Amino acid sequence: MTLGQLADTLGAELRGTRALEITGLATLQEAGPAQLSFLANPQYRKFLDHSQAGAVLLKAADAEGFTGNALIVADPYLAYARISHAFDPKPRAPAGIHPSAVVAADATVAPSASVGPFVVVESGAHIGAGVTIGAHGYIGARCVIGEGGWLAPRVTLYHDVHIGKRVVIQSGAVLGGEGFGFANEKGVWQKIAQVGGVQVGDDVEIGVNTAVDRGALADTVLGNGVKLDNQIQIAHNVQVGDHTAMAACVGISGSTKIGRHCMLAGGVGLVGHIEICDNVFITGMTMVTRSITEPGSYSSGTAMQPAAEWRKSAARIRHLDDMSRRLAQLEKRVDAVTRSADTPSEG
Amino acid sequence: MTLGQLADTLGAELRGTRALEITGLATLQEAGPAQLSFLANPQYRKFLDHSQAGAVLLKAADAEGFTGNALIVADPYLAYARISHAFDPKPRAPAGIHPSAVVAADATVAPSASVGPFVVVESGAHIGAGVTIGAHGYIGARCVIGEGGWLAPRVTLYHDVHIGKRVVIQSGAVLGGEGFGFANEKGVWQKIAQVGGVQVGDDVEIGVNTAVDRGALADTVLGNGVKLDNQIQIAHNVQVGDHTAMAACVGISGSTKIGRHCMLAGGVGLVGHIEICDNVFITGMTMVTRSITEPGSYSSGTAMQPAAEWRKSAARIRHLDDMSRRLAQLEKRVDAVTRSADTPSEG
Amino acid sequence: MTLGQLADTLGAELRGTRALEITGLATLQEAGPAQLSFLANPQYRKFLDHSQAGAVLLKAADAEGFTGNALIVADPYLAYARISHAFDPKPRAPAGIHPSAVVAADATVAPSASVGPFVVVESGAHIGAGVTIGAHGYIGARCVIGEGGWLAPRVTLYHDVHIGKRVVIQSGAVLGGEGFGFANEKGVWQKIAQVGGVQVGDDVEIGVNTAVDRGALADTVLGNGVKLDNQIQIAHNVQVGDHTAMAACVGISGSTKIGRHCMLAGGVGLVGHIEICDNVFITGMTMVTRSITEPGSYSSGTAMQPAAEWRKSAARIRHLDDMSRRLAQLEKRVDAVTRSADTPSEG
Repeated sequence: MTLGQLADTLGAELRGTRALEITGLATLQEAGPAQLSFLANPQYRKFLDHSQAGAVLLKAADAEGFTGNALIVADPYLAYARISHAFDPKPRAPAGIHPSAVVAADATVAPSASVGPFVVVESGAHIGAGVTIGAHGYIGARCVIGEGGWLAPRVTLYHDVHIGKRVVIQSGAVLGGEGFGFANEKGVWQKIAQVGGVQVGDDVEIGVNTAVDRGALADTVLGNGVKLDNQIQIAHNVQVGDHTAMAACVGISGSTKIGRHCMLAGGVGLVGHIEICDNVFITGMTMVTRSITEPGSYSSGTAMQPAAEWRKSAARIRHLDDMSRRLAQLEKRVDAVTRSADTPSEG
Repeated sequence: MTLGQLADTLGAELRGTRALEITGLATLQEAGPAQLSFLANPQYRKFLDHSQAGAVLLKAADAEGFTGNALIVADPYLAYARISHAFDPKPRAPAGIHPSAVVAADATVAPSASVGPFVVVESGAHIGAGVTIGAHGYIGARCVIGEGGWLAPRVTLYHDVHIGKRVVIQSGAVLGGEGFGFANEKGVWQKIAQVGGVQVGDDVEIGVNTAVDRGALADTVLGNGVKLDNQIQIAHNVQVGDHTAMAACVGISGSTKIGRHCMLAGGVGLVGHIEICDNVFITGMTMVTRSITEPGSYSSGTAMQPAAEWRKSAARIRHLDDMSRRLAQLEKRVDAVTRSADTPSEG
Repeated sequence: MTLGQLADTLGAELRGTRALEITGLATLQEAGPAQLSFLANPQYRKFLDHSQAGAVLLKAADAEGFTGNALIVADPYLAYARISHAFDPKPRAPAGIHPSAVVAADATVAPSASVGPFVVVESGAHIGAGVTIGAHGYIGARCVIGEGGWLAPRVTLYHDVHIGKRVVIQSGAVLGGEGFGFANEKGVWQKIAQVGGVQVGDDVEIGVNTAVDRGALADTVLGNGVKLDNQIQIAHNVQVGDHTAMAACVGISGSTKIGRHCMLAGGVGLVGHIEICDNVFITGMTMVTRSITEPGSYSSGTAMQPAAEWRKSAARIRHLDDMSRRLAQLEKRVDAVTRSADTPSEG
């Protein structure tokens, strides 16, 4: 693409050579003369002047004094996100059903959909227009995949999983697994059939090896625009509100309800049957054991220390209750001493 | 099924219309007139009177004054577990070997077993009566799967994995992977072949994307009735006692031995080469670095706080050792002051 | 193999019966008369004299007074690692392409490589000499797998993943997944195409269900000799230095750079965009939120306690800031009292 075409696509103001051929994207430090870069984080401003980039996506304010080719936009990071897809080397799968695939007679596959090698599509499933099912995919009975979805190789959907439009699912993800439901009978666990399904909204992304269990009775629900990173666990009957994002290794226990526009950083764990309101940010590896009713940032855990110091801190924490009691006692004694010290002067 | 049939199946006392057709299960709040519900948790008692459920599983005590259809049982949650399987929409796989499957000539597959599309069964493996191997399954050389087992699509067993009867394994689970065994030679890690296998007892369940590594020398062992949720890591030579349950995202390091009837909540981590006795409950995200010899509940970690407060707490923890020393010093000084304050009165 | 052959292979000094047939490996406690054992950890010295092992790998110092068959070596654990492969029951896959595999016309597969059932090899990929691709493997477009690699069944490589020589990848691992890159536009997440690839050095091992994401712009990089255990998350553009090892369930956020010869214990989490220097050891479940510039051991978290005691400690931690302020105040008051107590004696 030429710089001019990129400017037109983005609605950007072009300062420089319209005919310049752009073949890829790179950071300011690594970009070469045929690559487009961007300046989003002010910390990288220092790399701008010496960048070898063919052109740079810039805010008007950052473009002052910059002599290279520039595309002036309101939000360079967002412009980079938009244009990145033009340079994606990801192969496009051809429409049609690969001859090795096993598709049930009563499943429906849109003619524009692509069903890859060794895919299994079970009875009553529906694959929408423009959907890609990568190799080794498994689409269970009565599943529905809305138009424009992209399932990487090796994605497994159990039966009755309903997926919205333009949903991206990475390899190894499993939707509709049987949640962890057991009744205890004198110490022996009796399995509870998981008869609910999974509902996934539009524009959702689900990461590598992430698990979203089916509901025990009602469905497990992911709202529109939800983004789940890799290695996440979503237990049965969890509800995740629209546009909430979770980084890798998050674990959400059963029946927990998470609001809209929340962000859970990596490794966060939520106990079951709680509720998180909208606009909550939870920092990495936080253990959430109660509902959150106020928007804002929340954390738990202790800061890293050199191991020798940490051992002392960890030992002290075990005696915090004792320390606290000693402190209170000391306060009383000092009160007493102070009073007795005061008394004579009054006498 | 009619309500009468359900009562007969469960051995329940029926109060109401024997001929009522029941087509599914739901919670008290969501159930409709053709659905069965249950009251197990007293917190939900308030929903009973206004429930639209066609019938409700109830304890005799909770049924007093209830005018709807009821099935009276000693343990409604357990009755619900039992009857749930009658309403499970999970498709049953047909007996026989799918024509696309690759089965070694010297493997044995019971005629009543179901081997799905694109399954591979390697040399010397044995698939028992009534076993289901879902699509994309891989059954390694000399594996044995006991009767009645159900393996979801895409389950991978390396060679020499022995599975008991009625075992359920969810998608993405891997049994028999090569554990993390390396000897360090001047900073370079040399791989140690993992020559042991995996033994899984009867009535075990293994969750989505859970990994159970093979033994380094002897076998890794899961006892009877063990229930593992999703995304769990069981390292080489771990031994898990009968009827122990682990929630999602638990990680157990090598050669650790866990007793019977233990419960590990989500995200718990156990260091290697320790021993946990029977009847231990470990709360979520606890870091277990030493053996546990007494039954009971154990925890670690800090409670969640608003991030601004947490930052202060976390900073204070780093100085706990200093605080502790200052407190001890202060106690001595107050002792001294108190003594010196006492002294005059003695004189 | 005979004991003599083992001695020759290892360059060990043989004390005992050269012709003794050795059929396997076991621990000192479990070994029988046809098995080889080893003594590496001094704690197990007590099991040596009563071991039924046919022969034992020993240091010269430990062999004094031992009357059984012995192979004397400088490092018994390393010798055990070396010889373990001679007793590995892992089946060897035959060279050649299984008839069910789907291999692109322009992919190249070395004649000595093994491509298993239901494997897909995409356009432009190259499979080197002696490589094994287990059943259900997916090798994306333009991937390169260096000679001697061993991919267990069900390994998925997206496009443009470059793997060095002798790399071992366990089942369920996914390399090249699309990292978690989104730009926020008024609360809605816009996907950023992940146009980088993955580079993996020689002699790397990647565990079961581990995810290594492709780079957003430049590549994600694992150095030579890196060993990753199961269930690990490596985000986009992470760089891992040579011979660094990570135990299971570690999560590394995007663009983090880890040095050489580091060890991360199980469940460790690293925030993004930080740098860890060479020779760092991080203990289990530590939360790493800042760069580490000095070699050494680092930790975070609190020690496990009985749950009732833990609840008190956790509550106290929330009030640590208050405690700290009360302590400082008390010190001032005691200072004042001490001074005022001193004053009279001076008068």
